Amino acid sequence: MKLVVAVVQDQDSNRLSNALTKNNYRATKLASTGGFLRSGNTTFLIGTDDSLIPRLLEIIRENCRSREQMVAPVSPMGGNADSYIPYPVEVEVGGAIVFVLPIEQFHHF
Amino acid sequence: MKLVVAVVQDQDSNRLSNALTKNNYRATKLASTGGFLRSGNTTFLIGTDDSLIPRLLEIIRENCRSREQMVAPVSPMGGNADSYIPYPVEVEVGGAIVFVLPIEQFHHF
Amino acid sequence: MKLVVAVVQDQDSNRLSNALTKNNYRATKLASTGGFLRSGNTTFLIGTDDSLIPRLLEIIRENCRSREQMVAPVSPMGGNADSYIPYPVEVEVGGAIVFVLPIEQFHHF
Ligand code: NI
Ligand code: NI
Ligand code: NI
Repeated sequence: MKLVVAVVQDQDSNRLSNALTKNNYRATKLASTGGFLRSGNTTFLIGTDDSLIPRLLEIIRENCRSREQMVAPVSPMGGNADSYIPYPVEVEVGGAIVFVLPIEQFHHF
Repeated sequence: MKLVVAVVQDQDSNRLSNALTKNNYRATKLASTGGFLRSGNTTFLIGTDDSLIPRLLEIIRENCRSREQMVAPVSPMGGNADSYIPYPVEVEVGGAIVFVLPIEQFHHF
Repeated sequence: MKLVVAVVQDQDSNRLSNALTKNNYRATKLASTGGFLRSGNTTFLIGTDDSLIPRLLEIIRENCRSREQMVAPVSPMGGNADSYIPYPVEVEVGGAIVFVLPIEQFHHF
């Protein structure tokens, strides 16, 4: 048994939740910010058997890995026209930081 | 010294907090959701000596364990009358997931 | 590699965030309450190499340690005049609780 702590970007959080549920992993979610990843992010706590760790890491990587994404320009409604970019741009989104922690006892009441 | 991470249902959170304070355990509470337990839930972080772990687990079990509870029917004010249940029903409430983590260092500044 | 969990008072949270960024530590912040410290507080999760733990602890201590602070009196606008203290008083502020946790695996996707 291990406790997996995964910090993922908010935009990937629901997708990861659904994938975990579908694969019978149970997670607790904590709202978090900053630092490891661009804010905001979500911290998942997932308790799981050692034998299920490789598959869990695969699910996190599949749903949250850092990747390039084309972002459509937003027209500068009352904003700064100087910073308006009139064509789609590629930005980096996603990314996950994962810690696998040993545990000494696990209880379920 | 250990770090105990306990996820409990919101309805048991205040009762557990009071029981911990009364028994001289100190806890930090984090708002959390989903997965391990029906949402919403609260994640407690409790640092404590090894010798005090058994009593701590007892306190968590006493205050948070999964149990059946009679729930009075709520009249369907503008809701779906089809789903109205006109008598008390037994539902499962509570439950706690507890991880006891080893720690390498503990500091108090 | 270790996972450092630090609970600090909200009033020191921004200062610690800035000091961590300046020193190239990456942290995830979780809003938390009660128990270890007077509420509210912030829980920092910081993953870092073993060799950088001593400096990290120094930064946390420098920015968050418990200390005495003079607090100017607040005039009792519609409050209880009996409890009004008409001169500055010294109160204890700050403080941090720090757990250094071993980790079995670390991944960055
Ligand atoms: Ni990165
Ligand atoms: Ni259960
Ligand atoms: Ni203290």
